[in-house]
Amino acid sequence: MAIKMYDLAAADESVRFSPYCWRVKMALAHKGLQAEQLAWRFSEKDRLAFAEHGQVPVLCDGDTTVVDSWQIMQYLDERYPDKPIFKPDAASAQFFKSWVERSILFLVFQCIVADIHDSLTETDQTYFRETREARLGATLEDVQAKREQHRKALNAALEPVRTTVAKQTFIAGDQPTATDYLLFACFQFARCASSFQLLPAESAVFDWRERMLDLHDGYARKAKGFDISAISL
Amino acid sequence: MAIKMYDLAAADESVRFSPYCWRVKMALAHKGLQAEQLAWRFSEKDRLAFAEHGQVPVLCDGDTTVVDSWQIMQYLDERYPDKPIFKPDAASAQFFKSWVERSILFLVFQCIVADIHDSLTETDQTYFRETREARLGATLEDVQAKREQHRKALNAALEPVRTTVAKQTFIAGDQPTATDYLLFACFQFARCASSFQLLPAESAVFDWRERMLDLHDGYARKAKGFDISAISL
Repeated sequence: MAIKMYDLAAADESVRFSPYCWRVKMALAHKGLQAEQLAWRFSEKDRLAFAEHGQVPVLCDGDTTVVDSWQIMQYLDERYPDKPIFKPDAASAQFFKSWVERSILFLVFQCIVADIHDSLTETDQTYFRETREARLGATLEDVQAKREQHRKALNAALEPVRTTVAKQTFIAGDQPTATDYLLFACFQFARCASSFQLLPAESAVFDWRERMLDLHDGYARKAKGFDISAISL
Repeated sequence: MAIKMYDLAAADESVRFSPYCWRVKMALAHKGLQAEQLAWRFSEKDRLAFAEHGQVPVLCDGDTTVVDSWQIMQYLDERYPDKPIFKPDAASAQFFKSWVERSILFLVFQCIVADIHDSLTETDQTYFRETREARLGATLEDVQAKREQHRKALNAALEPVRTTVAKQTFIAGDQPTATDYLLFACFQFARCASSFQLLPAESAVFDWRERMLDLHDGYARKAKGFDISAISL
């Protein structure tokens, strides 16, 4: 039976930016697994009631339902052991996941938070503004206005990645693994939701991101994003 | 032939706090290798001339000389493959090393920098103050006076470790590996040079550090440090 996945969509249904969904989409691409990507919006909690979960990604694989991007990545490696994503660095992936979530994702989010809002359907805009402004303690626009500051903090926080990918092709060596997908999903998030450039060109992290965009026949590069839609106007 | 290692010493020759030396000492203990620890002081660059290197640790294993803590750790795993320290997380250790050096060690250093100074011989105090104040752009005392602020930043930066060791015994799983030693060396550094408490008791990172202190028959716990010398007065 086909794999289905609920994936966050912008107002333009073909724009899919969720960093948590991108982790799973890259893991699926890594394994060469096809999955039907069902567009889902913040205001459609009802459609996920079957999974007893209010957030995407949700993966349905035959009769099996798996929620939470991290659990889905682990499920995929167990169920489809060919081309593992957690080797050779399974052990340290837990630390790397926490580092990405605590030190990187929030800085990326702050750089593009008003752009994300603008990309959503009207109903989702209301939901997004209410929930996110309560968490941020500021308007989305005020947070994004300080994006130069967030970008600077982001690039400082990325220093351990810079020294790593200056020495080796991917974060855990010669081949892409879960660690690469965890970090890359943050950049793909920004790329799909905003035209803001997070990384200086001609930097080691920029070059690594280019390699990630090229993986799996340019899977992530082909995704509809802000830049691409701008070109097609 | 016996292994020898040049190890940074305080004015009290039995106090050895260098975080880079502690990486190697923990790696040696992990492998059950005996090494003669030669006391070395900042002002004794001449004694390392044979290695064409001005810093410790320097390891001499028979006719082989290895400098730089990271290279020594890798050398030990190649030369003594039993009980590897880089498995199962060899691939991600490079990232973790950079993270520790960029995000953790400097915060620890700032918390205890005047205490380190006070522990040194008079000649080394002069050298340490000159070189470190030039780097810091402030007096050692002014930096340490803000230690509450540095400690707060340190504990925030440790969040990805907290979530990891709340779930598993060591950073890369059930067994201690290079990642644990890289981080632990920062704490052992502080423990040997200062009485300042970096971590809140009854926290997951505190408990992990206790487990590290217990390893290899309490090897690190037995090291002479500020607390221990205070007790023996």
